[in-house]
Amino acid sequence: MSAEVEELLKRFQSMKNVTGIVVVDNDGIPIKTTLEYNLTLHYAALMQTVREKARQVVLDLDATNEFTFLRLRTEQNELLLCPQEDYFIMVIQSPCD
Amino acid sequence: MSAEVEELLKRFQSMKNVTGIVVVDNDGIPIKTTLEYNLTLHYAALMQTVREKARQVVLDLDATNEFTFLRLRTEQNELLLCPQEDYFIMVIQSPCD
Repeated sequence: MSAEVEELLKRFQSMKNVTGIVVVDNDGIPIKTTLEYNLTLHYAALMQTVREKARQVVLDLDATNEFTFLRLRTEQNELLLCPQEDYFIMVIQSPCD
Repeated sequence: MSAEVEELLKRFQSMKNVTGIVVVDNDGIPIKTTLEYNLTLHYAALMQTVREKARQVVLDLDATNEFTFLRLRTEQNELLLCPQEDYFIMVIQSPCD
């Protein structure tokens, strides 16, 4: 898993306007982060519930379908959530120019 | 509200690969739809919970922030959710070429 995570991290870090990345395993434990400790825990806990909600809704609409990516835009930034089998990556992006 | 909804509907209908649009009021009642009845109810109920989850998470992270748009990509399609004050618009888009 580790090499794959590093590869994804590199990919997201090279994206424009990325201000934070957190990788969270399926138990909700942050395994990589670029944020400070408390903020990492806060994002990990909340985005874990977003991942679960998205997964459930997509399955409920069609049991053969699967949730692959989520982009949540807010007034201040964008949160990207990329689910993988054993973990998910959450990326914070400041608004594009 | 009606003229505003019509304007947004037109905007989304002109987007490429749009296969369905549902407008849902804050009580979870579909007020406009291009889908058949049961599918409309199913999408409305589920996407209402997604809207609420997104709203809560964004507020929990920062009480001065606000959720403005959500894009949920799945293996088969994309679901867009655009929250307004009194309702939200949900758009189903088939994958881009």
